[in-house]
Amino acid sequence: MSDDHSRKRSRAGGRAGNKARAGSAVIDQMPWRIPVNPDRPVEPLDADGVQRVHRTAMRILSELGIEMLNPEAVAILKQAGCKVSGTNVKMDEDFVMEMLGHAPAQFTITPRNPAREVIIGGKHMVFVNVSSPPNAWDLERGKRSGDFETFKEFMKLTQYFNCIHIAGGYPVEPIDIHPSIRHLDCLFEKLTLTDKVVHAYSLGAERVEDVMEMTRLAGGLSHAEFDAQPRMYTNINSVSPLKHDYPMLDGAMRLARRGQPVVVTPFTLAGAMAPVTMAGAVALSLAEALSAIALLQYIKPGCPVAIGTFTSNVDMKSGAPAFGTPEYMRATQMTGQLVRFYGLPMRSSGVCAANVPDGQSMWETSNSLWAAVQSGTNMVYHAAGWLEGGLIASPEKFVMDCEVLQMIQRYCETQTFATSDDDLAFDAIREVGPGGHYFGCQHTQDRYSTAFYAPFVSDWRNYEAWQQDGAVWTSERAHRLYKQILAEFEAPEMPGDHLEELTRFVARRKQEGGAPTDF
Amino acid sequence: MSDDHSRKRSRAGGRAGNKARAGSAVIDQMPWRIPVNPDRPVEPLDADGVQRVHRTAMRILSELGIEMLNPEAVAILKQAGCKVSGTNVKMDEDFVMEMLGHAPAQFTITPRNPAREVIIGGKHMVFVNVSSPPNAWDLERGKRSGDFETFKEFMKLTQYFNCIHIAGGYPVEPIDIHPSIRHLDCLFEKLTLTDKVVHAYSLGAERVEDVMEMTRLAGGLSHAEFDAQPRMYTNINSVSPLKHDYPMLDGAMRLARRGQPVVVTPFTLAGAMAPVTMAGAVALSLAEALSAIALLQYIKPGCPVAIGTFTSNVDMKSGAPAFGTPEYMRATQMTGQLVRFYGLPMRSSGVCAANVPDGQSMWETSNSLWAAVQSGTNMVYHAAGWLEGGLIASPEKFVMDCEVLQMIQRYCETQTFATSDDDLAFDAIREVGPGGHYFGCQHTQDRYSTAFYAPFVSDWRNYEAWQQDGAVWTSERAHRLYKQILAEFEAPEMPGDHLEELTRFVARRKQEGGAPTDF
Repeated sequence: MSDDHSRKRSRAGGRAGNKARAGSAVIDQMPWRIPVNPDRPVEPLDADGVQRVHRTAMRILSELGIEMLNPEAVAILKQAGCKVSGTNVKMDEDFVMEMLGHAPAQFTITPRNPAREVIIGGKHMVFVNVSSPPNAWDLERGKRSGDFETFKEFMKLTQYFNCIHIAGGYPVEPIDIHPSIRHLDCLFEKLTLTDKVVHAYSLGAERVEDVMEMTRLAGGLSHAEFDAQPRMYTNINSVSPLKHDYPMLDGAMRLARRGQPVVVTPFTLAGAMAPVTMAGAVALSLAEALSAIALLQYIKPGCPVAIGTFTSNVDMKSGAPAFGTPEYMRATQMTGQLVRFYGLPMRSSGVCAANVPDGQSMWETSNSLWAAVQSGTNMVYHAAGWLEGGLIASPEKFVMDCEVLQMIQRYCETQTFATSDDDLAFDAIREVGPGGHYFGCQHTQDRYSTAFYAPFVSDWRNYEAWQQDGAVWTSERAHRLYKQILAEFEAPEMPGDHLEELTRFVARRKQEGGAPTDF
Repeated sequence: MSDDHSRKRSRAGGRAGNKARAGSAVIDQMPWRIPVNPDRPVEPLDADGVQRVHRTAMRILSELGIEMLNPEAVAILKQAGCKVSGTNVKMDEDFVMEMLGHAPAQFTITPRNPAREVIIGGKHMVFVNVSSPPNAWDLERGKRSGDFETFKEFMKLTQYFNCIHIAGGYPVEPIDIHPSIRHLDCLFEKLTLTDKVVHAYSLGAERVEDVMEMTRLAGGLSHAEFDAQPRMYTNINSVSPLKHDYPMLDGAMRLARRGQPVVVTPFTLAGAMAPVTMAGAVALSLAEALSAIALLQYIKPGCPVAIGTFTSNVDMKSGAPAFGTPEYMRATQMTGQLVRFYGLPMRSSGVCAANVPDGQSMWETSNSLWAAVQSGTNMVYHAAGWLEGGLIASPEKFVMDCEVLQMIQRYCETQTFATSDDDLAFDAIREVGPGGHYFGCQHTQDRYSTAFYAPFVSDWRNYEAWQQDGAVWTSERAHRLYKQILAEFEAPEMPGDHLEELTRFVARRKQEGGAPTDF
């Protein structure tokens, strides 16, 4: 059950009331927490390698330049001393590094429920739901275009699972809602069905402004309170190679000016929009990200930003994008090294190419999630629910991925490798002696309920017990769980006046026609 | 196709002949190679933590002692100065560390085909087939007891996949062969269906001696040649907690005396045969392993040995063993740190609790395989084919796991993170420019065929192409592949006189009644 439910119940029953309820919850999940990654990152590059990638990124920025298809951004960078020729902007290393010097290494985003605030940076790691697939797939209905009902289902899953920290982009694109008002309906659901950090797509000034205003109203904040600290964020993508488009830069600048975080994530598939060699693809990606970040730091020094990586490779036989490959893992790790060199927070993803939640989907997703851990990633996008290279969101996959995410959370807990005298258990080893059994000893009895990770969708029974219970494979178990979760979902509370303000705003903006759709 | 096939064909067609055949091979797999792991291991323990685990292991050995249910071993250790009381043997740190000082940090095992020799130790990593399940499962036949036909199927898979380096224990126990002659029939098939390193179960003197003799004959070696260097190996398990049984120690001593490697792998499930706390379970496991290794080094200083870990946890609700858990990963990493402290090679495993080759099986196996990489494991047992906590061997799982193993091999290749000027690709980035595409440029054309990992069972096509082709899930694709592989399998050549000697030996030993079955 979600934290919010716990809190409501605990008012009635306290700790005992909580415990009594545990049996009736759909699953017994880990509590809300922000994992802190204790591992030293995996570093494929030596110091010279880091410098070589960095210098290549700097050469790209200073010798080739980036196309900035946003006149305002170009004018600002010209004023900042960059070499501008039409839409091409060249910036030298001194400028870039000076701008990076303003950016914070870590920041906190506080959503309408302050208990759900997230720390982005340092050793912290947060997980974001699957974002932006046009389609949904589940075991019952197969593949179909995204719609608003499905959007809401995923929002409920996003809220339900404590291991999902951020309600990122739309888990599916609800094509049954007209694009002019889609952001209004979607954000209304996101802000009422969840109390977690939300995100604005940078797809036009009106949308961005609407989402900022809705987030402000949902939190009952004054404009000054909203501007005073990060309350939501945006993620922008470059148009690789070497381009930033108009609306993405526009949205990024709007958020930066109000102190709201911007994640810049180039999408550089090696062999397609980037060099076929991974270090080259990484250097290109970094150059593109740094160019936007330098712009934002010039506009509002110290504004919160992060570098995202989406560097993978294509299948050279078909041109299809591949995810969770060895090359993807190394690109993510290399990016982590460079992002730490630049002193910024980092985003990567939980991704796969598989079309259904089967074995392939889980080894690809596991590879990408462990690469996130190994690279020191702070924000893991698409951490639950992604299939078909991001073209499908699946509720079964969402549930299965959350099991893996919980295991990563548990992996991060120092209890798993603690070496106090109690952990080393010499006295218990003496007590049990040769040929004895540890189930019954006091050392075990004192610890057994919290000693190990407890799964919710894994089946650890032997084959015969599993078979007698219907021989249900993982994806089918996940299907049943997701339906139960939806059936018993309760939305988090929102103060009546905030809800009223939010409702009124949406109604007014709809009456005004929403956002233009011709950008 | 296997290397061996390539070599046979290449005599006829040379390089061109090889290429022409590539299209008709069942799968296009990576060539035989021993992966070298370039990553710094993940080290959850700090230096003090390493010392604390070490000191606990030493206290277990010196204060509690180990039960050695083998009178010969006890007598030898008494002679060595250990404190003996009945079957209890206590050894102090000085003795253990002195004995460890004799053991090599790395050794090579050379099977009948010297091209298949494996290096155990250092940064090398080799993969062993699934070993010892009593049952088999496949999509068509479901779960059933192991039999000789199934044993042979798995031997063919073991030979076929270049990423499987060692033909370890029996992939299934063939219960249709009488135990007195089972080792003769099994080793005959192993030695003729594969040309990779083989293993002897330490289950009685006759079996161990027979397997050594058969390995010698299959390689056409004199006794002196056999004894001169590692040709095969055994793996022994302690009876945790704190016991070594008679046949395991007997087999280990027999191999050590002839210079053949011994891997010592306690099976310490935290909460069952070991403390519920992971550091305690690791300390117990190490103590048990070190006691046997000290014995072997006293008997034959410098004999090749390795420390295995099989420390996982149980499900505290049911007592069922769990694998690939966060606790399993940390235990493996901690063991890696201690094994490096002792200067020995290390074994761990690819394991899962799942009953079928579904999503759960792959996240659990991925977790355990990445823990192997992170821990600096040299020998990965059960790397392909394991299900149900080791009670089932599955050919579909075998094929699926080999995809993950190949990805790990590729991950280890430095090409994935190289930073030469060619890799950084600045000239290509300039050439393609903004908004261009990298498919066509010379830099891509020169590299596309080897730039990325090429999968054989993953399906990277989009949903619609995958659906039109039958919407086949991973386990079913693996099922089809395994059948094709068996249908087209060709055994590696063995010189006629070696085969004759081997056949004669087996016939004679069968006539003599094989091995006693009353131990």
